[in-house]
Amino acid sequence: MTTTVAAYAAPAAKAPLERTTIERRAVRENDVLIDIEFSGICHSDIHQAREGWGEAIFPMVPGHEIAGVVSEVGPGVTRFAVGDRVGVGCLVDSCRECDNCKAGHEQYCTGGSVGTYNAVGKDGEPTYGGYARKIVVDENFVVRIPDGLALDVAAPLLCAGITTYSPLKRWNAGPGKKVAVLGMGGLGHMAVKIAHALGAEVTVLSQSLRKKDDGLRLGADHYYATADEKTFQELRGSFDLILSTVSAPLDFNAYLSLLKAEGALVNVGAPEEPISLNLFSVIGGGKTLAGSAIGGIAETQEMLDFCAAHGLGAEIELIAAEEINDAYERVLASDVRYRFVIDASTI
Amino acid sequence: MTTTVAAYAAPAAKAPLERTTIERRAVRENDVLIDIEFSGICHSDIHQAREGWGEAIFPMVPGHEIAGVVSEVGPGVTRFAVGDRVGVGCLVDSCRECDNCKAGHEQYCTGGSVGTYNAVGKDGEPTYGGYARKIVVDENFVVRIPDGLALDVAAPLLCAGITTYSPLKRWNAGPGKKVAVLGMGGLGHMAVKIAHALGAEVTVLSQSLRKKDDGLRLGADHYYATADEKTFQELRGSFDLILSTVSAPLDFNAYLSLLKAEGALVNVGAPEEPISLNLFSVIGGGKTLAGSAIGGIAETQEMLDFCAAHGLGAEIELIAAEEINDAYERVLASDVRYRFVIDASTI
Repeated sequence: MTTTVAAYAAPAAKAPLERTTIERRAVRENDVLIDIEFSGICHSDIHQAREGWGEAIFPMVPGHEIAGVVSEVGPGVTRFAVGDRVGVGCLVDSCRECDNCKAGHEQYCTGGSVGTYNAVGKDGEPTYGGYARKIVVDENFVVRIPDGLALDVAAPLLCAGITTYSPLKRWNAGPGKKVAVLGMGGLGHMAVKIAHALGAEVTVLSQSLRKKDDGLRLGADHYYATADEKTFQELRGSFDLILSTVSAPLDFNAYLSLLKAEGALVNVGAPEEPISLNLFSVIGGGKTLAGSAIGGIAETQEMLDFCAAHGLGAEIELIAAEEINDAYERVLASDVRYRFVIDASTI
Repeated sequence: MTTTVAAYAAPAAKAPLERTTIERRAVRENDVLIDIEFSGICHSDIHQAREGWGEAIFPMVPGHEIAGVVSEVGPGVTRFAVGDRVGVGCLVDSCRECDNCKAGHEQYCTGGSVGTYNAVGKDGEPTYGGYARKIVVDENFVVRIPDGLALDVAAPLLCAGITTYSPLKRWNAGPGKKVAVLGMGGLGHMAVKIAHALGAEVTVLSQSLRKKDDGLRLGADHYYATADEKTFQELRGSFDLILSTVSAPLDFNAYLSLLKAEGALVNVGAPEEPISLNLFSVIGGGKTLAGSAIGGIAETQEMLDFCAAHGLGAEIELIAAEEINDAYERVLASDVRYRFVIDASTI
């Protein structure tokens, strides 16, 4: 039997979100029912609710940064019990059989992973995300939030945390490495914290010095304004790794010039339009331009354990559900330090 | 005292090459004098002789695929003796002090490496390349050609060999890996041989099937025509590594779609104009677009030893010096299987 759940939904593309109810499926063999306590607002929620990334499914309940407590488990569930503190990120299912799934890269599932919202599940039903009081998810796509981590600051880790942790690990951010974080927003501020905790020397490259104090407080060793041309002269050939969290168009040739030989510029943000790239910008120094999308489920658990061990949560502004539409406008204006989190009790 | 040496030189940009003489410097403390026996013709010789890559130094004696025999050594030379079979590639000097030089990446020297021709040496004198009877080079930029390797087929290894060997090794071509070689020319045919010898499963992606028999003979397991749209459907998500040796403009988004998750497309050829790239082509599968330029001196020696151990030389067409200008036209028409090599005794 389905459960009727209060939620905030966009009824149509570009329409404001409003309070409504949705049906959550009955708990199946391997499902857990989660009472959502907090749900982060990711920039991609806005892209999708406004069809900036192409046709979407409405009504849409966004939200893929979900933290809550298990309130019911299916008979086949082995890893979770009622009362457990858990999280759900961007994925709620995948084929589980392809090479990528088997390698723990469910986000690159060749059979097609299922997004937490704005997607259709393997059962043919649309998925609804975290701007709701409850959610039902297969236990294989649920992660444990360690005790040391408060649920409100943990919620954004399910997307902003893993999206930055995964490439920082893969591309060897750590002691002796100089890492630049491009952009000081929701993703960027987590990248600073994580790269610092990994032991790297961290530089923030932001448009202005407006958030410099925050950047240094969160773990950055250096902070430069990219609007200042001198930054590109001074930092030429400096970095082993640049993690770009920016969605605005950039001069990628200029940023590649900031890498050492064999360095990598890894993009987790991206402009919607194609970029122009001179291939000699990568050939000259044996450099890399790469991309990365979120992370797998096991790696998400690893990230949460890492963040708990290092006391890392997101910097958040906690809001009530009725403030969601205003929060969207503030996200678009880069006016948030550094992640809005919805108190789900207000939904 | 300088030595007067017969050479072929371009007297000015776009002018045909003609027989002339040049002065080689007196052998210094750490120099070796090499009697050149063979000199390969690289496509980049043509780019530079015709100023396709920007302003160049004339008269120009091209040639950075040099094989010969040591005929004199300076008093400080410790690694070579008269009679040794040796090679010289794209570099004849570097700062030797920067992090890249110390790491064996002299090609990425931040102090400025010195090209074998069309460059100015640390002594302020222009450098002249391998289309000549003799050359004087610091022993630190000379490599040994193993006995098993004939000098004529070894010459092209000094550029085409190392340029493909270095990225194939760095990006883990080997057993269990599916490697595509894009382009079946001077670089591509060596990439096929080397990737096969490294143990990878090798696919050639060439415009047509015209050279298919050669490709399979040289070690490819599969051969596809990129002019055929079905190739892109059939090979979607197939490769761990694609090595592009092509200088023509390509649809890079289409080639990136042929990579597995976390695969890499590495460019050793590049179009002169900037490319258009949709960053979602790398974000979606955590993919990499990278570049690579030749290799360091120690790695060039490693490559020669590897090629000798596996019996790998270039496929060559041996020509007399008076055929150089005709050979240039045939290179531009992709009408060479697969590298022209000048018999230096005809200069």
